[in-house]
Amino acid sequence: MCRWFAYIGEEPILLEDILIKPKHSIIKQIDVHFLPYLHVIYDPHLYRKKFSSGVASDEHGPNHFTNVDGFGLGYYTGVAAEFNNDNINRPCVYKNVRPPLNDLNLISLCAHTSSKCVFAHIRAATRLSPIVETNNHPFVFGRYLFMHNGSVANFLNIKIALVQKLSENAYRNIFGTTDTEHVAALFFTHLGNDWDTELPMENLKNAMIKTLQDILTLIQESAKDMDETLPQSNLNFAVTDSCQLLATRFSSMDEFEPPSLYYSTTAGPTFNRKFPDHPDGKEVGKEATQATHNHGKHVIVASEPSTYKTKDWYLIPSNSFILIGKDLNVVIEKIDL
Amino acid sequence: MCRWFAYIGEEPILLEDILIKPKHSIIKQIDVHFLPYLHVIYDPHLYRKKFSSGVASDEHGPNHFTNVDGFGLGYYTGVAAEFNNDNINRPCVYKNVRPPLNDLNLISLCAHTSSKCVFAHIRAATRLSPIVETNNHPFVFGRYLFMHNGSVANFLNIKIALVQKLSENAYRNIFGTTDTEHVAALFFTHLGNDWDTELPMENLKNAMIKTLQDILTLIQESAKDMDETLPQSNLNFAVTDSCQLLATRFSSMDEFEPPSLYYSTTAGPTFNRKFPDHPDGKEVGKEATQATHNHGKHVIVASEPSTYKTKDWYLIPSNSFILIGKDLNVVIEKIDL
Amino acid sequence: MCRWFAYIGEEPILLEDILIKPKHSIIKQIDVHFLPYLHVIYDPHLYRKKFSSGVASDEHGPNHFTNVDGFGLGYYTGVAAEFNNDNINRPCVYKNVRPPLNDLNLISLCAHTSSKCVFAHIRAATRLSPIVETNNHPFVFGRYLFMHNGSVANFLNIKIALVQKLSENAYRNIFGTTDTEHVAALFFTHLGNDWDTELPMENLKNAMIKTLQDILTLIQESAKDMDETLPQSNLNFAVTDSCQLLATRFSSMDEFEPPSLYYSTTAGPTFNRKFPDHPDGKEVGKEATQATHNHGKHVIVASEPSTYKTKDWYLIPSNSFILIGKDLNVVIEKIDL
Amino acid sequence: MCRWFAYIGEEPILLEDILIKPKHSIIKQIDVHFLPYLHVIYDPHLYRKKFSSGVASDEHGPNHFTNVDGFGLGYYTGVAAEFNNDNINRPCVYKNVRPPLNDLNLISLCAHTSSKCVFAHIRAATRLSPIVETNNHPFVFGRYLFMHNGSVANFLNIKIALVQKLSENAYRNIFGTTDTEHVAALFFTHLGNDWDTELPMENLKNAMIKTLQDILTLIQESAKDMDETLPQSNLNFAVTDSCQLLATRFSSMDEFEPPSLYYSTTAGPTFNRKFPDHPDGKEVGKEATQATHNHGKHVIVASEPSTYKTKDWYLIPSNSFILIGKDLNVVIEKIDL
Repeated sequence: MCRWFAYIGEEPILLEDILIKPKHSIIKQIDVHFLPYLHVIYDPHLYRKKFSSGVASDEHGPNHFTNVDGFGLGYYTGVAAEFNNDNINRPCVYKNVRPPLNDLNLISLCAHTSSKCVFAHIRAATRLSPIVETNNHPFVFGRYLFMHNGSVANFLNIKIALVQKLSENAYRNIFGTTDTEHVAALFFTHLGNDWDTELPMENLKNAMIKTLQDILTLIQESAKDMDETLPQSNLNFAVTDSCQLLATRFSSMDEFEPPSLYYSTTAGPTFNRKFPDHPDGKEVGKEATQATHNHGKHVIVASEPSTYKTKDWYLIPSNSFILIGKDLNVVIEKIDL
Repeated sequence: MCRWFAYIGEEPILLEDILIKPKHSIIKQIDVHFLPYLHVIYDPHLYRKKFSSGVASDEHGPNHFTNVDGFGLGYYTGVAAEFNNDNINRPCVYKNVRPPLNDLNLISLCAHTSSKCVFAHIRAATRLSPIVETNNHPFVFGRYLFMHNGSVANFLNIKIALVQKLSENAYRNIFGTTDTEHVAALFFTHLGNDWDTELPMENLKNAMIKTLQDILTLIQESAKDMDETLPQSNLNFAVTDSCQLLATRFSSMDEFEPPSLYYSTTAGPTFNRKFPDHPDGKEVGKEATQATHNHGKHVIVASEPSTYKTKDWYLIPSNSFILIGKDLNVVIEKIDL
Repeated sequence: MCRWFAYIGEEPILLEDILIKPKHSIIKQIDVHFLPYLHVIYDPHLYRKKFSSGVASDEHGPNHFTNVDGFGLGYYTGVAAEFNNDNINRPCVYKNVRPPLNDLNLISLCAHTSSKCVFAHIRAATRLSPIVETNNHPFVFGRYLFMHNGSVANFLNIKIALVQKLSENAYRNIFGTTDTEHVAALFFTHLGNDWDTELPMENLKNAMIKTLQDILTLIQESAKDMDETLPQSNLNFAVTDSCQLLATRFSSMDEFEPPSLYYSTTAGPTFNRKFPDHPDGKEVGKEATQATHNHGKHVIVASEPSTYKTKDWYLIPSNSFILIGKDLNVVIEKIDL
Repeated sequence: MCRWFAYIGEEPILLEDILIKPKHSIIKQIDVHFLPYLHVIYDPHLYRKKFSSGVASDEHGPNHFTNVDGFGLGYYTGVAAEFNNDNINRPCVYKNVRPPLNDLNLISLCAHTSSKCVFAHIRAATRLSPIVETNNHPFVFGRYLFMHNGSVANFLNIKIALVQKLSENAYRNIFGTTDTEHVAALFFTHLGNDWDTELPMENLKNAMIKTLQDILTLIQESAKDMDETLPQSNLNFAVTDSCQLLATRFSSMDEFEPPSLYYSTTAGPTFNRKFPDHPDGKEVGKEATQATHNHGKHVIVASEPSTYKTKDWYLIPSNSFILIGKDLNVVIEKIDL
């Protein structure tokens, strides 16, 4: 299981405040982690759902893979759009296969960079895709970032059929060999050929539904061809164009729980050093220069909560969309395929 | 011979415009380069100066080392100072031992980052210091960046004596093994213990003079102890605190020409995509959105010119300071030890 | 243009002696090189052939790309076969994207390892395949190594059609995104499903002929579909199973000269420190412990000669096979498609 | 706490069999590990010794650092000595800052290389020394390898005084910035100036005693100068010249237990695929081709046992030498300073 973290808001955030400083920040989520206690409250036992291998649970420990297989970061600065005098707000991307805690470039970058939209991802590779930078998430398509926690079952069996569904542009935008990047190419094929202008959320949602349908169909056909039982896929995706964000918490089989995915619309000030409180707890001193109520509207979507305040975090229900529009309002919708 | 490039100005510059785009930008200066033709005009032959090994000249080719031994970049964003609500404007630093042209992180970072003060350096290592990131320039001391083209002769012979001259703070700020980082620590020892508040240029100049004197004395004593002839050192240093910049073009022996070092107070618009003209020549189309005269005051100091307009570049005389104050005025002064 | 070097013989060679020590060894072939003077004698002018971009020639300089895009090394030790008590002699492979001259691991490995069969490759990437280790040559398929100098024209246009020709095993053995690794998978599809037992040279030759035919057909069909003029491909391949070696010097269009490719059956002792003479010239002192005539039979095939003795090197004619059997005899054959 | 593993024997071992294959091999010891159950039997509680931070114990979990800060491997092939026709058997060294489990070069190297003497080390860096290859253990001095688990207390305070004790040769053989490499240089200063010919074990022991005395004295003097209480150092060192091996399990303060260190003279066949049994347990099938009693004499010294057979492993008492001579006999001696 990988893990990812996404921030979008009208309040710029210092990358260090969300990615490095918290005791349970994503770059420290290499093994045992902050207890995903809300996950239990949601209670898979009650719903009698099973966990597929590697999925967070309090019973088996939250993660039995070690996330040391590459870190990736995407964020928007708006600088290129200003210098190019267009409105094409493409992301800056940083990827490395070294453990992120040892990466002095990453640490310096995070200490000196703020953004209103950030994607971060830490990978636990399956043995199918090698550990090289081009396989690290998030992936860039025009102004979009795309990342994933989970895996597409039997990906190599459906890869050729999937590739044949891709538009020329999407196909040529693939630089690595992961299932995720190919799924992203399929999503951007369904989204159309213009990845630089802003599109309505409805378009993103429709493209994602078609993408999920295609993947499930391809897997079914492949299992049928090979006379195998249908395998399970975990498909927690996130995609953004800098001003809106769509994510999914999705398991291809109803009897399995997908990996955890939380959101928060209130944790921002706790992360941000300008405001009171600290992600590791109230007792950690912090000199606030602004009042909490002055913090801008924002949403965080993440595999695991990384502040101590559990009441700030909501578990997204299984097989649901979380849709965050330009107004930064959150809509949770059942995924209906 | 290494090479370095420094920009300071009131006009923010897109890193891509100075470091990546020009045909002769520093990351492309790995072997044969833009002809340092002004260097010839200055005419070492006339002054009968010799070139030490590796120094640029039109006679032997501008550079007989290959600069593939590590790239480093330092730039100021002001973001940390804003979030910390102090005035401590420390630099962001990025270093890598991969060839910079292949470094997708660097290329993305430069495409999405602008700054008013940038240091960049490409290394041709002597065999004494290994090729690891901690040996890449520029080096950070508090709010300062420090870099070097050249080498301190017989550095290992004087290292212990040099280290004993260092303040506790400067000593503990050394993370690699290069001559340059040790010289920097000596400079910051002479500068005093506060590396976070702005100091008058006079302090920087005095610290540099003491540093040069110390190095020359240490080398002389070592040569005497070992009964060797005095070796030659090339000491083209640059130091900045984000709002002023001091650099040296210095050879320890008068009969040798130091490596080339140029400055320009007018090349900025040619680099900057917002303004007319292009570093590779007028014929390269560029859609300017602003008039040249609107470009802010700025100074570039660099081992080699990297725009086609030779009249924009001045060779700094041997054994001189270039001092760029907060007003961005340029003063050239003979170094008088 | 990339470059490659292959050694096969009954005399083990210290890797340092072929890859590191010579002034013109492959790891030093990053830009201007040892004059491929035999190439001129062969005289493209006489035959009025053209050079495609990047091909060695004395007229335009031997190489106008800079080979800093990744080094790869494959060699056979026989150790695994001994410990596993089978006869499956698979290769050890080392790949890195750092400049090889700076790579202390590579330098140490070469100083302490000998082998009877070695493949080495230095890459000048086209912009289509990213610079990651999985894209470095040579590629491993069972007991085989495969490498390439040149490029498959319009590879992205034919990739899907090519992939559909692959056997399941060959397809699953692809870990990167280069044209070469896909061509290799096609070759090993034609070779059959057993890549661990030794096969007759005839099988290798037939598989290579089918591979070349397939590639040319795919390119023709793609050009026709897209209504484009037929592009030129350079296909200098090498493949070995540790005891025999097949290589091609091939241009897809007769009017173009393929990249240079030489062989030698006598240069071994000059490389080997146990024997008299030195790759950089007679004047370089070397204490031989054995007489030249005691050196075992061997063949070297390489993009460029890397000893000073031009009479030891033969340019392989355009569009030819070089076939080196278990008896280490050399056969040059016209490639007849 | 780091961890290290050493093998010396007359039976060559495939690197994969000791470093990669076992479930608890050193490259998998990044966090929670094989229970060091003998450690408990030795019973720190009985002796009422304390554990310093990071030391293995069953009470607090075996290791609360994560060992992802660089892997190093040294082994002897004898190849260079054969080609150079001297008897100078220097080691081959491989170091990387990537997680070793992701390192395809390391995995291939281990699959195809055997040796009679191997040192391997995995690092959990203190924040004082950066994570760069030159700081990875083991360190090479002539024909010797040197590695360390633990740390020298207040190293930066004693570094200059330590450096002044070094011979010119030892000083010039330092390429990184760790405490360990400096201690090694002190050891090789005491050993004398010839690091290429074999020396009696007595010389190694005396050099180590002087080194430990020097370190303790330097730390005492520094603590006194600074009016600080004496800090504790863990000094589990290992050194070899390929044919003999000396290691220490040492804590500078008697009331603290040093990190665990085990040895085995019988575990070799269990690791080695040629012989019956498997490091992960009898139930793991393995086709032996040789009988256990045919395995050559050997000794393993390691921070943690990595086979399931606890009776094969002995905990070395605190503050002791383990001395393994050319006859491969083991002598345990109290360290008497």
